[in-house]
Amino acid sequence: MTCPFCEIASSEEEEDLIAYRSESVFVITTLRQRANHYGHALVLPREHVVDLSGAPPSLLAEVFEVVARVSAAMPRAFGAVGTTILQNNSIPDQTLLHLHVHVVPRFVGDGFRLPDPTVSVIDRETRVAQAAEIARALQAPDTAPATQRRPRFD
Amino acid sequence: MTCPFCEIASSEEEEDLIAYRSESVFVITTLRQRANHYGHALVLPREHVVDLSGAPPSLLAEVFEVVARVSAAMPRAFGAVGTTILQNNSIPDQTLLHLHVHVVPRFVGDGFRLPDPTVSVIDRETRVAQAAEIARALQAPDTAPATQRRPRFD
Repeated sequence: MTCPFCEIASSEEEEDLIAYRSESVFVITTLRQRANHYGHALVLPREHVVDLSGAPPSLLAEVFEVVARVSAAMPRAFGAVGTTILQNNSIPDQTLLHLHVHVVPRFVGDGFRLPDPTVSVIDRETRVAQAAEIARALQAPDTAPATQRRPRFD
Repeated sequence: MTCPFCEIASSEEEEDLIAYRSESVFVITTLRQRANHYGHALVLPREHVVDLSGAPPSLLAEVFEVVARVSAAMPRAFGAVGTTILQNNSIPDQTLLHLHVHVVPRFVGDGFRLPDPTVSVIDRETRVAQAAEIARALQAPDTAPATQRRPRFD
């Protein structure tokens, strides 16, 4: 089976899902999102690296430098108050073996939990809009935080 | 109030809690651990940096290089099959504002969840033993994984 993340990284048709791209790293929002965490993003190496220990130090450094930037952009992009960073290495029942770091936007009263029964597949149009929002927030670091805005699925 | 992480980083009396130390980064196990995640570790900068965006790129790179090494050491240290990495930035109700990256050892059937009602304060002696175990595993990367061993609190 083709790796779905490698596919997004290399497909021209998926370009509009991409919020940020360098030679080595890209950013998308997740296919499955939690009701209270609109804009849940992933930071990934373009290369098919399986986990943290498979990434050379320079790639690891770039991945987490981008994680820090996406995390800092979440208030501007979606009115988040903060973020939770999550990343799994060979955990039981793991199926997606392409290193990906979750940047979960956090909101007051969001009741963050794992596992979260409210996770559902979201439509492509929403993900494209979210990617554009993150791209804008990454490019405009001096914009005031969008604290009055809290996009929701419901 | 003094930052408890700054205190551990600088106190000679807490030295035995430290599994790894460089000029900029140190590793301990957590005061509060989940019943099914024996050996839950934290990787921290010695400097009082509040979150990801407060860390200069070189420090961020070293923190996550150490996270990758501690993650890779968890099978050797505690017989884990993998790890979950977790880190919070200005989340609602956050109280400990010194950047710390959780390295949660994962085991088959561990039922990982957040929040976890089984979290409890563990004794100092256990944390000292865990620190020694992680230190050994970091120094012996070629040792066979301790897959037959699964230390538990119960």
